[in-house]
Amino acid sequence: MSTPIPTPAATPPDVVRAAYMELVVTDLQASRDFYVDVLGLHVTEEDEEAVYLRSLEEFIHHNLVLRKGPVAAVAAFAYRVRTPADLDRAVAFYTELGCRVERRAGGYTKGVGDSVRVEDPLGFPYEFFYDVEHVERLTWSYDVHTPGELVRIDHFNQVTPDVPRAVKYMEDLGFRVTEDIQDEAGTTYAAWMRRKPTVHDTAMTGGDGPRMHHVAFSTHEKHNIIAICDKLGALRRSDAIERGPGRHGVSNAFYLYLRDPDGHRVEIYTQDYYTGDPDNPVVTWDVHDNQRRDWWGNPVVPSWYTDASPVLDLDGNVQPLTARTDDSEMAVTIGADGFSYTRKDDTEHGFKLGAQL
Amino acid sequence: MSTPIPTPAATPPDVVRAAYMELVVTDLQASRDFYVDVLGLHVTEEDEEAVYLRSLEEFIHHNLVLRKGPVAAVAAFAYRVRTPADLDRAVAFYTELGCRVERRAGGYTKGVGDSVRVEDPLGFPYEFFYDVEHVERLTWSYDVHTPGELVRIDHFNQVTPDVPRAVKYMEDLGFRVTEDIQDEAGTTYAAWMRRKPTVHDTAMTGGDGPRMHHVAFSTHEKHNIIAICDKLGALRRSDAIERGPGRHGVSNAFYLYLRDPDGHRVEIYTQDYYTGDPDNPVVTWDVHDNQRRDWWGNPVVPSWYTDASPVLDLDGNVQPLTARTDDSEMAVTIGADGFSYTRKDDTEHGFKLGAQL
Amino acid sequence: MSTPIPTPAATPPDVVRAAYMELVVTDLQASRDFYVDVLGLHVTEEDEEAVYLRSLEEFIHHNLVLRKGPVAAVAAFAYRVRTPADLDRAVAFYTELGCRVERRAGGYTKGVGDSVRVEDPLGFPYEFFYDVEHVERLTWSYDVHTPGELVRIDHFNQVTPDVPRAVKYMEDLGFRVTEDIQDEAGTTYAAWMRRKPTVHDTAMTGGDGPRMHHVAFSTHEKHNIIAICDKLGALRRSDAIERGPGRHGVSNAFYLYLRDPDGHRVEIYTQDYYTGDPDNPVVTWDVHDNQRRDWWGNPVVPSWYTDASPVLDLDGNVQPLTARTDDSEMAVTIGADGFSYTRKDDTEHGFKLGAQL
Amino acid sequence: MSTPIPTPAATPPDVVRAAYMELVVTDLQASRDFYVDVLGLHVTEEDEEAVYLRSLEEFIHHNLVLRKGPVAAVAAFAYRVRTPADLDRAVAFYTELGCRVERRAGGYTKGVGDSVRVEDPLGFPYEFFYDVEHVERLTWSYDVHTPGELVRIDHFNQVTPDVPRAVKYMEDLGFRVTEDIQDEAGTTYAAWMRRKPTVHDTAMTGGDGPRMHHVAFSTHEKHNIIAICDKLGALRRSDAIERGPGRHGVSNAFYLYLRDPDGHRVEIYTQDYYTGDPDNPVVTWDVHDNQRRDWWGNPVVPSWYTDASPVLDLDGNVQPLTARTDDSEMAVTIGADGFSYTRKDDTEHGFKLGAQL
Repeated sequence: MSTPIPTPAATPPDVVRAAYMELVVTDLQASRDFYVDVLGLHVTEEDEEAVYLRSLEEFIHHNLVLRKGPVAAVAAFAYRVRTPADLDRAVAFYTELGCRVERRAGGYTKGVGDSVRVEDPLGFPYEFFYDVEHVERLTWSYDVHTPGELVRIDHFNQVTPDVPRAVKYMEDLGFRVTEDIQDEAGTTYAAWMRRKPTVHDTAMTGGDGPRMHHVAFSTHEKHNIIAICDKLGALRRSDAIERGPGRHGVSNAFYLYLRDPDGHRVEIYTQDYYTGDPDNPVVTWDVHDNQRRDWWGNPVVPSWYTDASPVLDLDGNVQPLTARTDDSEMAVTIGADGFSYTRKDDTEHGFKLGAQL
Repeated sequence: MSTPIPTPAATPPDVVRAAYMELVVTDLQASRDFYVDVLGLHVTEEDEEAVYLRSLEEFIHHNLVLRKGPVAAVAAFAYRVRTPADLDRAVAFYTELGCRVERRAGGYTKGVGDSVRVEDPLGFPYEFFYDVEHVERLTWSYDVHTPGELVRIDHFNQVTPDVPRAVKYMEDLGFRVTEDIQDEAGTTYAAWMRRKPTVHDTAMTGGDGPRMHHVAFSTHEKHNIIAICDKLGALRRSDAIERGPGRHGVSNAFYLYLRDPDGHRVEIYTQDYYTGDPDNPVVTWDVHDNQRRDWWGNPVVPSWYTDASPVLDLDGNVQPLTARTDDSEMAVTIGADGFSYTRKDDTEHGFKLGAQL
Repeated sequence: MSTPIPTPAATPPDVVRAAYMELVVTDLQASRDFYVDVLGLHVTEEDEEAVYLRSLEEFIHHNLVLRKGPVAAVAAFAYRVRTPADLDRAVAFYTELGCRVERRAGGYTKGVGDSVRVEDPLGFPYEFFYDVEHVERLTWSYDVHTPGELVRIDHFNQVTPDVPRAVKYMEDLGFRVTEDIQDEAGTTYAAWMRRKPTVHDTAMTGGDGPRMHHVAFSTHEKHNIIAICDKLGALRRSDAIERGPGRHGVSNAFYLYLRDPDGHRVEIYTQDYYTGDPDNPVVTWDVHDNQRRDWWGNPVVPSWYTDASPVLDLDGNVQPLTARTDDSEMAVTIGADGFSYTRKDDTEHGFKLGAQL
Repeated sequence: MSTPIPTPAATPPDVVRAAYMELVVTDLQASRDFYVDVLGLHVTEEDEEAVYLRSLEEFIHHNLVLRKGPVAAVAAFAYRVRTPADLDRAVAFYTELGCRVERRAGGYTKGVGDSVRVEDPLGFPYEFFYDVEHVERLTWSYDVHTPGELVRIDHFNQVTPDVPRAVKYMEDLGFRVTEDIQDEAGTTYAAWMRRKPTVHDTAMTGGDGPRMHHVAFSTHEKHNIIAICDKLGALRRSDAIERGPGRHGVSNAFYLYLRDPDGHRVEIYTQDYYTGDPDNPVVTWDVHDNQRRDWWGNPVVPSWYTDASPVLDLDGNVQPLTARTDDSEMAVTIGADGFSYTRKDDTEHGFKLGAQL
């Protein structure tokens, strides 16, 4: 069991939302092809080192930075804060936590000004910024819409060994839990946390960490997600589809998981629910409930549990991993020692598709 | 020109969102048929005097109260606030404004506790509450979903003679403008304002007021709205469709306007955009732009401009109207003296369907 | 009352389906912009005189020919027949009817071989062909799909003064009526007739004729039609939307009517029903039923009733019109002497939107 | 290799379409719950022995008969023919083939009159009928639509050991192949054949037979299929979902496979393409193409390959099976000796999800 992360006396920065991810990719052209030509993200700006992309309804400079580098990894999970003063708060908050903190008045990426980056207590590279270049919101530009149009960045998902420890720290940072997965013994396998009033801005998934599980973009409707799958088939890239499409139990969203050319996981997501009331009810799922991760009981492929992207420290080196010591969700739900059920009280418990494939 | 409403020194209550409307209806059974059997809202509780209804994803007691009464009118526009202490703030804020203020520890409707109601500076009956009974959120109950399922209450829309005056007061109350309609002379015809990060929790529409223009519920997808129209056709109630379905210019939402048995207007609405950033760009539309209210240029029927519901004071009497003295949107856009355009620089200006119908 | 058209002793050609329309357009580039850049039809072939277009799921050379010419008109309504021998049958059938008949072994358009064109008894230029060039069916090419993708040609719609006379002739040609609009006195205002098992391959609409009312293309889903409207708005071409989108009573299809740069009317259409059984029930609608043409009771704009495209004879001259002497549908349903109802037995009859616009 | 089935000299009956299936079920109430309460098929008539169900847009008495019996099996695959005289043709055609043929003037099921049933050369119980009771077509009855409304019966799918032998017989019966799956050595694994102009009225799937693989119903749109999955989740019956939803390569339809309480397989299906032209191009898929059965490369579960329902002879006894001697599709595509590819020319071949689950 790791040491708890103390609650700082400092006021945390007022985080508005998950705003962008900086991804290091090993083949910039291949990644550009995937995110621009296949997924249809809009290029705000690009050069030989990086491509700055945004979703349809975004008015800030970017939601995703693809930066060429030697190792596929995540350089930053970036959050927008409410005021410039929140950068001071971020510095104080993380300094008190004993974290490495850097501030650059000119920002770390094009289009973003004064920024704070930290190596947070879980080992993740978090960025906080307010100052950002505004660009055209393409909402009404239906002439550039594609059938699978990505309209918003929705959330991050992070892999960390001790989920309750991570949740407590994120609550100190001002996030609120909306849903989680537990077992009867009280082990927490994953938790979803939000600032904006959706199910999450980020989630903590139990596993060896720090790693990035996925970054998620929203579409307007379910058929938009199906259109992405259909297009991947037409391009003979269907093996980019890792899991789904399906309906989540957790969040109730319709989803799809893709793997980009470096193996970074991208979720396409639509139609979770409003969570903005102060007393929004937390939904806790039983880890053995086979509908918790796919409401239709369709299998979660093992790679979805095991694979995730490295994250970088502020010098650009890959962060070492700490192993999870709690039970793994995969082990307790499928395989020799685990089980899942469709109906809790059924005498027969078993994973729907068994070990057949 | 009316006197400006002064900005109170008191801190306004922290409004979370538009939460429910209390409607007085003259035939409770006819209204119940419309909202429950036709539109599929879910009954939380009912008695001989009132029906309490909620949308699919709601966890508070109700989003709509239908109360039997002699005159079809609106008894309350109710907002959820963040904490119990915000009720004290509401009392102080409106008392300073010289408004009539009432507080009932037991609430005004079933399911809601301590509440403040005011006759606001514009003459509207506003309610603020925190304490509320939680009920089952039906999000995952797909076995009760209908093809036209209403999933959330989205916003109110109010008619008031002097829009800038109303906006200034609402900004003092903590609302932010997201979009508005103006003309080249600076007249403001309507403005949309939000607390939750959507295009609005309420809008101010220029006209004789105070009156209620509409209350809006959201669906998940566009086909859900079409299903409502189709069902009204099957029930031979298509004359309940006043306007639409269509795509708004303002808000970019897909919409439909219905009239209930008393003529109260209900909007069905889906897919506006995220507005939660502090510097969210305001969109200003030209009143002569024929795509501002319907992106496809389809006509706005005159009744949509002229009709609205009376509102009640705290004694249950209908509030008298103050006439709009600014130009009316209908007059400047259609008819003998008005005009609209599809392309601003076209030499020919004209309303698409003209006076032909 | 016109003379009935005699039933030929000759066996009619076995028509498979409405296959393509040849449109004369006055500005080829403007028309190409509309059909290709806006509507997304696929170019099979083009030169300075003509553009040959097909829908996504088509495997024959074209569904629409745009040909440059001095007068916007229709040069051919072309039907595919089952065998080459059906061309001989077409010659015999129309020769017996006393019609002008031409046959060209090399066809009238690129991509089509041996063809018969006639000036039919109603004055329309009908073509029959079997021999046609096969091209790639783009069904699986999701990488070229647009949000408003047109997947099939569905039907033609023709204006003719005496509908029962036209229907009798079309039945002799092997078509079957699926739906019609009549009044209590037995006047027929329109009739829908099919060869393929959908509601129609062509319809006869009462009015001064011969004229072409519209040509229709299908989409897969309703949101595809909405996407076309949204795109027209983005391009500031919303005035190309003449009527809809809406739900038809007749055919039950979801629809949209557009006007191309020459005023030719194009319908976008989806989800009518299977009619292929020999005893498929005919649906007859009351002309006064306000839901017959729009299930939601939304208004049919007058231009939809009054405007239509000229058709050409086999020399390329515009066919003169014969006036309708039966009642006009517009006159009996709207305006001073007409009426429509939402519920047949209501005492109050009236057009929903009245004469207000 | 089995003996080829000779081509009869007799003219085959003119089959219009796959019209209904008679299923023997072991628990009539459980089956009624599944098909009526879960899937929403409409009850035309029922008694203690049988339930007669139809889809929304059907006007004949039924598309599915659930009949109580001791062994879950298929009693009839019933086709509508064009004229009463086609029953005589069916008798002559199958008599010449040496099959057992029965004719009942009063029909085999309620609502259907004069009928011919045969034990066809492949061992399947085929029925041919023209005379049938008409019932209300519910197309316009949007007040009874469910979110997952089934609008048409689309096709059957039959398991038989020798696919080319079966295809040849079906072509003699007037069916046309639209698509098939083969390998480089010429083995045919499955073939799709149609009378009505869709991809199929029935398909032949290679395996031990005669068995019934599935019966398929259509929805209007893709979201309707998703709604069925969501509802099964809400009812905690997600284990009824065997495969999908997904996009087929073959047929291009969006699909879902369910298993009813007896294990009978039901497909929900939407949006294949028009095949009615005489020279409609046949699409041949490579058995190793991992996108042939699921365009997204998602796995076909083994049960989908191995399980199927017995069929009955005309005395109600289960037909014995003949083993497939050709290669099995499952063996050549997954597992130790088989392989699939996403891109034909990739050096690495492998089933996307491997043997991991």
